[in-house]
Amino acid sequence: MTTVPLSHRFVRYRLPSNGTAKLGLVDNEELNVTEILGYTDLFKLIEAHPNLAPDYQFATGQTSSLKAVEIMAPLPGRDILCVGKNYIAHAAEFHKSGFDSSDKNEQPDFPVLFTKRATSIIATGKPIYTHPNVTESPDYEGELGIIIGKAGLAVPKDDAWAHVWGAVIINDVTARERQRDHKQFYIGKSLDTFCPMGPYVVPSSSLAFDKLHLTTTVNGEVRQSQNTSELIFDVPTLIATASMGISIQPGDVIATGTPMGVGMGMSPKVWLKDGDLVEISIPPLGTLSNPVTSTAPTVCLLSAQ
Amino acid sequence: MTTVPLSHRFVRYRLPSNGTAKLGLVDNEELNVTEILGYTDLFKLIEAHPNLAPDYQFATGQTSSLKAVEIMAPLPGRDILCVGKNYIAHAAEFHKSGFDSSDKNEQPDFPVLFTKRATSIIATGKPIYTHPNVTESPDYEGELGIIIGKAGLAVPKDDAWAHVWGAVIINDVTARERQRDHKQFYIGKSLDTFCPMGPYVVPSSSLAFDKLHLTTTVNGEVRQSQNTSELIFDVPTLIATASMGISIQPGDVIATGTPMGVGMGMSPKVWLKDGDLVEISIPPLGTLSNPVTSTAPTVCLLSAQ
Repeated sequence: MTTVPLSHRFVRYRLPSNGTAKLGLVDNEELNVTEILGYTDLFKLIEAHPNLAPDYQFATGQTSSLKAVEIMAPLPGRDILCVGKNYIAHAAEFHKSGFDSSDKNEQPDFPVLFTKRATSIIATGKPIYTHPNVTESPDYEGELGIIIGKAGLAVPKDDAWAHVWGAVIINDVTARERQRDHKQFYIGKSLDTFCPMGPYVVPSSSLAFDKLHLTTTVNGEVRQSQNTSELIFDVPTLIATASMGISIQPGDVIATGTPMGVGMGMSPKVWLKDGDLVEISIPPLGTLSNPVTSTAPTVCLLSAQ
Repeated sequence: MTTVPLSHRFVRYRLPSNGTAKLGLVDNEELNVTEILGYTDLFKLIEAHPNLAPDYQFATGQTSSLKAVEIMAPLPGRDILCVGKNYIAHAAEFHKSGFDSSDKNEQPDFPVLFTKRATSIIATGKPIYTHPNVTESPDYEGELGIIIGKAGLAVPKDDAWAHVWGAVIINDVTARERQRDHKQFYIGKSLDTFCPMGPYVVPSSSLAFDKLHLTTTVNGEVRQSQNTSELIFDVPTLIATASMGISIQPGDVIATGTPMGVGMGMSPKVWLKDGDLVEISIPPLGTLSNPVTSTAPTVCLLSAQ
């Protein structure tokens, strides 16, 4: 056991030889992961360190090549909170698309919050299933996910950043006609494999939230490219709204909405298909990379996430 | 330790002298609870017994007076799936009320599914908080909650009942203008204390689903009274829809919608207020009884549910 200084870029992973989930720290070059001792669950680490100091040193163990381990979804097992129509140009493309059953207006008057089921969460590298028997319109949505640290209720905007533990990339994959036809977004947003998450989780002390830039590519073609600070409802407003009578919990993820450039907004519309590769980057959160498949997965068990 | 035959009417509870959650069986007269040995978590019991035989005998321990124990919410910690506008007369009263932002039509073409946050779950006897700083229109919705047993994905209607483990009463308390203004129902449905659940959980083998009758009273006045089989989308359709590309899990609860008679449908509209008592009965699931308070609770921690 050694204690060494490392940047706080957390990854949940397992070794091929041993199926147990571990938490580790990734080095700057994304070559190696060093195991953190004492924690195997990021929810518990966040609860124990709601305001992680940038120079905090975890006790660490074995270092492995990042290529030799399986990266897992960092925060599995809990339904993900999401925000709809939170970038001006995306609200316009959604409104024009014919798939928005939620509002007569292009931009919302109040934040639009909904959830994705925990069973939809997958790790980077794992395939997004197109669900050909359920939808003809699977679409990506690259998003910045905010992670709650300190629990709160009725958090004022002025205190909101004190409840933000860090961030993670979310792909809010959506079945567009299911989102439209069932009125409430839940089903269209919650299909198995429709919530790629990761690869890394980075605490606020290592992030400049006003300088984060999101890029989504499909098969290498840039589709989305926007600064994640250009939200209609900013992060303090989202925290205040999400905690407005609702107790937010350590480890809750709020996906803050997607910028312009989803397949629904293209002319003609372009949907995800077998063989595609969707990659979402927000440095320093890494690149969330998922192939697309039309080969059905088996039933997802929460207990196996 | 004794093994005795008891009806399968499960209750989660704790003794005043000992804060640990236990599972027990309630007798027919609702006088006593007898502890089940080997389980303290209903999710695990359901996983272990996805098709509980009516004559299955659990190993049992101490019997206590039901009045002397604290009844807890039976299935805490997981977001609750709900169905909107699923009784004809309620769909009409909702449509007429001016609070339905979800649909131009009175009755939905497809099941409307959304979630309530796990932090909103409370037990029978615990107060529903009116959230005067968040809403002017807190309203009750008495509902039959279906509990999933066997996990499933793309469950055909013909197989649906094989995935239904049992049932529980849900009060889908709603902040009406929050439900309307945020377009997606999540916030209006998820305020802390807005999901009373219980008191008992009964497996399918002890239920006649086509003969269950729901009665909701407020301060003793009957507000809702309907057979829970009169759904627009029946239970097999709901199971097929909820599992349409989404893996349903042991212990998932699907609140099947509320019948006519909510406060929003009265003329003039009547909202819940400090001092009210809301009671929802569905024999043999018991009576879910919750007072209403304007005294704010503290932050709810999932870990304390």
